[in-house]
Formats: sequence, structure tokens, C-alpha cells
Amino acid sequence: MINKKFIGVIGGGQCSKEEARQAEEVGRELARRGAILVCGGLGGIMRAACKGASSEGGTTVGILPGNSIQAANPYVQIPIVTGLGEARNVIVVKSAQAVIAIGGSYGTLSEIGHALKNGIPVIGLNTWSLSRNSRQDRSIIPAQSPTDAVDKALDLATSPKYKE
Amino acid sequence: MINKKFIGVIGGGQCSKEEARQAEEVGRELARRGAILVCGGLGGIMRAACKGASSEGGTTVGILPGNSIQAANPYVQIPIVTGLGEARNVIVVKSAQAVIAIGGSYGTLSEIGHALKNGIPVIGLNTWSLSRNSRQDRSIIPAQSPTDAVDKALDLATSPKYKE
Amino acid sequence: MINKKFIGVIGGGQCSKEEARQAEEVGRELARRGAILVCGGLGGIMRAACKGASSEGGTTVGILPGNSIQAANPYVQIPIVTGLGEARNVIVVKSAQAVIAIGGSYGTLSEIGHALKNGIPVIGLNTWSLSRNSRQDRSIIPAQSPTDAVDKALDLATSPKYKE
Amino acid sequence: MINKKFIGVIGGGQCSKEEARQAEEVGRELARRGAILVCGGLGGIMRAACKGASSEGGTTVGILPGNSIQAANPYVQIPIVTGLGEARNVIVVKSAQAVIAIGGSYGTLSEIGHALKNGIPVIGLNTWSLSRNSRQDRSIIPAQSPTDAVDKALDLATSPKYKE
Repeated sequence: MINKKFIGVIGGGQCSKEEARQAEEVGRELARRGAILVCGGLGGIMRAACKGASSEGGTTVGILPGNSIQAANPYVQIPIVTGLGEARNVIVVKSAQAVIAIGGSYGTLSEIGHALKNGIPVIGLNTWSLSRNSRQDRSIIPAQSPTDAVDKALDLATSPKYKE
Repeated sequence: MINKKFIGVIGGGQCSKEEARQAEEVGRELARRGAILVCGGLGGIMRAACKGASSEGGTTVGILPGNSIQAANPYVQIPIVTGLGEARNVIVVKSAQAVIAIGGSYGTLSEIGHALKNGIPVIGLNTWSLSRNSRQDRSIIPAQSPTDAVDKALDLATSPKYKE
Repeated sequence: MINKKFIGVIGGGQCSKEEARQAEEVGRELARRGAILVCGGLGGIMRAACKGASSEGGTTVGILPGNSIQAANPYVQIPIVTGLGEARNVIVVKSAQAVIAIGGSYGTLSEIGHALKNGIPVIGLNTWSLSRNSRQDRSIIPAQSPTDAVDKALDLATSPKYKE
Repeated sequence: MINKKFIGVIGGGQCSKEEARQAEEVGRELARRGAILVCGGLGGIMRAACKGASSEGGTTVGILPGNSIQAANPYVQIPIVTGLGEARNVIVVKSAQAVIAIGGSYGTLSEIGHALKNGIPVIGLNTWSLSRNSRQDRSIIPAQSPTDAVDKALDLATSPKYKE
């Protein structure tokens, strides 16, 4: 029976060096704590996070939008080939018990929406700010650093419960 | 050969009376202008918009999340049964040439993200405000009224082009 | 409230002239009886069926695998853009109350499987034969002609029931 | 860089004792050879195959149709939560380089169709027989035993090739 935590890392397929540095540190820290990294499997934030996790012996799952594993970054260990395009974003968040958003553009925004819709906690590092009716939305939990983001994600992740 | 415009209307499955009034007026106005309404097929904003469109003889398409048409609101004329859950949100926006967002919660937020990711214009009526890095995002085009929203959506919708 | 029947027509994106003739006749007959045609929106069988239905003033829905309506055949009136690749096959069958399979290859086989899994009747015109454990499977109902196929599909289609 | 082979095991969520025995042996043999098992994550054939693989220290991926990991069998180590219903069948086969079908009903038939459509080899153990136009279809490669099925699947699986 499994008792690992699965944490999603979401963010742009292209990103700044500083964002990549943060994502790599998030990946390393997740691996050190024994969590399994789930992401969209491509470049940018996803590649940096997988690289970090791999460097610490962690497990990485990449849920790919296309029809082949050719597009996967080289640090993905478990490639899931969906052929679903952006609809795969839903699977990335549903397969995680908490999600860390780093930077990101509209694809990341869609993932934040899907996560919150499903009651999956979203921790944000320099990502979108949301508001409705002039009130600041409190749904994205801000983190001060990669380590803080991982702390919060693991605290909020509900451990998977199996039937047996 | 088709030369209709397909306009998405997105928003909560539950909504205020004022939002429902706006959605119904959007539906009526879309029908008067000959546009086909695409939505998620359920209640709240979707039901009100379909009701408005139907009252003016318009065509309504409802892209349903579940496995049966039982959940469709009674004003859906073309029910599409996906069984995909929220992943159907992607289909709602991709099947439209422009999207009008009215109010809405996290599901609507995911649809806004998917639309903008795909370059589909989003017109907003009292919906989410977004920002990144302290800069106001200009990606949601605000409308002042249902008629203004329909004007802007039809202006921005690129007419479908077929091979023949 | 809707009381139309939605009938799926499935088959290859490429087909023989004889198969195209049969598909066109199926489309014509569905339109004459007031049924709405649902298909995958592309060429071959799908195009022929949509052409037949259009020629008799019927309504055609094309559930497209790609990200644009450019690939739709010119007789699709309601294009649904999924971006899901072959996963859209599931939507074609779930959106129909009965399915007519004409010829077809492996994509059609997957649709037959999805339809039967969901209890949606499949009528076959020169399509796959299936067996399990040396017993002939009786799940595909053979038709002798396009008109016979439409007769059987409409008999077996359960009329959609809405809440109101 | 990964150089594992990913092999799908497909079959019914309910199965006979003999089929379960075969699936468990397939799982054990895949694990002994270092392959990663991909399946739909539920009971029956899927559970037996995951149990076999786990007993030999193998890795198991379960691509779930629902919205929670509660439905996963207890031998799934990497649960992927899709919420897509049967559309997840497409992901099971696309994520594998070859597929072993054991028994199975209509869901399995849809997976066989999707696999063959995508050029993914299908090895069959007491599963569907297919024919078109009175000719026996040669597309499912018959196996004589679980070990024979694994031999053939690993021979036919193309090793994943990454960019780096």
C-alpha cells in the first residue's frame, strides 16, 4: 500500500532563470522529503523541477499533452502520454494532493482554476493574483521561498487513502 | 458552407438573479444577431443564456460534463455528452470564436485560462480580475452591459473558415 | 424542450465509393426522419453522411479531434472543437442514442467498443465482426441496407428525456 | 535518461480465476524483466497484474477513470487521476509501447481499437477475435501463455527515445 504524497508543480514551458532556480529547488526539496513530483512533463518550470527532484533521487511523473514521449524533458521518469492537448492540465492537478504554482501564464491559470475547483490546495511563488468583485481572492496561498512552498504543500496535502 | 459565429457563454452553475438577468440578455442578443450559443449546458448562467437565446429563436449547444443529457438545462437544443468532467471546459472554449464570462467561480477561471491560452478573446461582465507581478492583466476585455459584451464578442470573433 | 433523436454515424476517414454511397443514403434518410446526425466531422464516411443529411435539410454535428474547424468537412453545421485527438471518439458515441457503423478501421473499432460499453446500440453495415471465446458476438446488429440501418437505429434510440 | 519499457495490461474489471492467474503471472514476468506496468488501475485483470508486478518489486502505474484514488487497487504505486471516464482508455494505451490484452469485454475492445489505431502492438491472451469483410484480422498477435505474451510484448515494444 502506498503512503507517498504526490505534489504537482505547475508553471510556464518557458521561464526566467530565477524561476527555473526556484523550480529546481522545489524539486530537490520535494525529493528530499520523499514526495513524488507530478507535472506536465515539458520544458521550463517543469524541466527545472524534474531536474531538481532527479538530482536528489526523487520520482518524477510527466503528464504529456502530445502523442509521444519525445517532447518529455529528460528528467521525467514516468511519462504519461495523453494526446489530449491542454485538457491534460486537468489530470496534472487531479493527480496531485497539492499544487505549487511558479510564475506561469494562461496555461498555469487554467490549472489553478481546475485545482481550486477540485479543492486541491494551490501554493503560489510569484504567480497570478486573482480577485473577484474588488475583493482579493485568498485562494492561492503565497509562499516566500521554495522551501516555504514545499512546507506548505506537504502540510496541506492529504495523504492518499486506499481501500485496503 | 457555414458562416455562423459561435460564441461561448461561461459562468457559474449557480448565480445571482442579476447575473442571470445579464446572461439571459446576452443569450437574447446573440440570437438576434444570428450567432450560435455554446456553453457547458448546465444551470445558472448557462441556463439563463440558453433561455434567452431560445426565446429569440437562436440555436444553443450544451457541452455536458456527465454521461447523460438528463443534467442539461431544458433550453439546450444540441446536447454534447462528454463524460469528461471538467475537462469538457476546454471544449466549450475551443468550440467558440469568442467567449463572454459572466460572474463565475473557479470553473470559469479555468475556462478563462484555456481561452486565453488558445488566443480566444474573453469579454468579461463582473467576472475575475487577474494580475501578474503587480501589473494589471489586460487579457479580459471588460464590458459595460450585456449588449456591449455581445458587440465586442462578435467584433472579435473570427468567422469560421472552411476548406471549401 | 427537445424531442429530436441524435444518431451517430461512424466509419473511416477514407472509404470506398460504395461505402460513401451508403453513408450518404444513411445521412439523407436520417434527415428525412428528423434525426440529428452526430459524427467525427472529418472526411470519408463522415463527409458522405453529412452531405446526405444536408441535402435533405438535416442538422449535422461534427465532433472534431483537432484544434480548429479547418479540418471539418463542408457539410458540418455544428462543429465541436475538442483538441482531444482520438479521445473525441468517446464523445461521438456518448452524444448519440444509437450508432450506425459503416465499414471502418481501428478508430471505428474503438468507437464500437465505447458504444457497447455504454449500452448504446450499434447497427453495422459491412463493418467489423467480433467474437469472444469462439462464440460469435451478437452485439453489433447487422443491417441489410442504409434504410434498414436507419430503421433499426431509430427504433433502438431512446428519446432524450429532460428534467422539465 | 530513462530506458525502461512501459507495457500496458488491459482486460476486464471483473475476470475469471484463470484470467486473474494469467494476469498475475504477466505482472510478475514484466517486473522480472524490468518493465513498468501501465493499466487502468481498477480491479479484476488490472488488480491481478499489479499484484504480480508488485510481488516482484516492479513499478505499477494506474490510470484511473474517476476523480479519486479511492478506486485504485492497492497494488497501484503511481495513481493518475483523470476524471475522464472511459476516455482514459486512450491514455492507458498511448502510455504503453505494447499492450497485452487478457480476456476483457467492450472496454477492452475500445482499448484494442485505440492501440491498433496508434500503431501500438497488441498481444492477446484469450481475448477478442476480430474480422472485417470475412477476412480474419491479423492485428491481434496471439500468445500461448503469460510468458509468451511478455516475450512478444517486450520484443515489439520500441524503447522510448528522449531528446537528450
